[in-house]
This record gives sequence, C-alpha cells and structure tokens, in this order.
Amino acid sequence: MLKVSIERCFERFADTFSPKIIGELNGQHVKVVRLEGDKVPWHTHDDQDELFWVLEGSLDVMERDQTVTLHPGELCIVQRGHEHRVVPNGHVKLILFEPAGIAHTGTVRAEITLDEYEWLEP
Amino acid sequence: MLKVSIERCFERFADTFSPKIIGELNGQHVKVVRLEGDKVPWHTHDDQDELFWVLEGSLDVMERDQTVTLHPGELCIVQRGHEHRVVPNGHVKLILFEPAGIAHTGTVRAEITLDEYEWLEP
Repeated sequence: MLKVSIERCFERFADTFSPKIIGELNGQHVKVVRLEGDKVPWHTHDDQDELFWVLEGSLDVMERDQTVTLHPGELCIVQRGHEHRVVPNGHVKLILFEPAGIAHTGTVRAEITLDEYEWLEP
Repeated sequence: MLKVSIERCFERFADTFSPKIIGELNGQHVKVVRLEGDKVPWHTHDDQDELFWVLEGSLDVMERDQTVTLHPGELCIVQRGHEHRVVPNGHVKLILFEPAGIAHTGTVRAEITLDEYEWLEP
C-alpha cells in the first residue's frame, strides 16, 4: 500500500492544466491538477462522468444552462453527455476522479490538450 | 449539477461505521463515514479496489503484512484480493471511493455490517 499525501503531491509541480495521476482503482484515476486562467474549451465526454473537487481557490463548473461555483471542500459531478467547461477564479487546486483514459478536453483539441497524463509517484 | 459540501455532509450525521453515499459516477460511489472504535473485521473484496482518504483524525489501514497510518489529507488504495481492516485512532472522518454495491465488510458478517447504504442528498 502506498500512502499519498495530497499536499505533497501539489508541492511537486507548478504547471497548470496538466492533470497528474496519483492513484488508480477499478479502472478509474484519481488526479491532481492546478488551474489558472480561462483555457478550458467547451467539451463533452459521451461515456464518462467526471468529478471535480476543489481543495483551494474557487472554480466555476459550467454547463450550457447552469453554473456551479465550487469552493474548498466542495465537489460536483458532471454527467456523461453534458457539455461543460470549467473556469478557475484565481489559482485553483483541484482533485479529479474519472475513468482511466479519459480525454480531458473530450474530442476538442485546445492549447491545453494532453494525450497522456503523467503519473506522480508517491 | 449538484454541489456537495463535504463538511456539511458530515454535519448531518453522527453515527459511526455507516457509510453514506454522496455521489455516484461511472459505477462508483463516493461515500463519507465516521469511524470510532475497533470494530472492522478482517475482510477481502475479491473484485474491488477501495480508496481511503482521511479528512480528520488518523486511521491505521492494515493488511496482513503491513500497516499504513493515514493523517488528514492522506489517502491509500487497498487492492482487490488483499485482506485488510482499518482501525481509527480516536474519531475519524473518512472519504471512500469504491464500486457501487461493494459490501463494506466483504463476505464477513460483523456487528457493523450493513446491507444497504443511505444516500445523503445534498
């Protein structure tokens, strides 16, 4: 068993919009990511639900007909098929829980799009 | 989208060893649970990995050949097939990520065993 300190994970990187995997279970990944700036395009995951959990800062999670603003200790789930984007207010530390292999900007190619995610070894 | 405040979830119950579901995604549940006392029997989930994330207090996560002590902001994953138990040190607030339908004490029946989990509506 590996013990993972979330705070120590965040201390190990400074780049933004680049999710790092910190755990894998049941085909799902737990990831940490820093966000700053309005860079995430509208996109959809047809077959994957996605969980956003804010640890620091605040984050607008937007669907076309609603916006939820998450503060530290708050989470929400975007259901599969729902077009969405997220906009950080200032610098945000975020946890993601989502299926392994998910494309973080869906089928949309954007400046921030990555084809692979780095593993952050404990 | 429903916004879930983890802290408010914990304010809504006081019972221990009774995981409450606060979110569902991709066949997985996010649960909150309070633990106090040495009540969890050794058990195994043959086909399910299980994530433990401590928010308050400290928790010994034990496999037969190792123990990891988790403090607030720390998590670990017990892999499927690994016999384990957890022992809280004092009162512990814990997040669980695990497949929907998991039996929290595996195939072992114990005083704390529940057949269903309550949904904690936001």
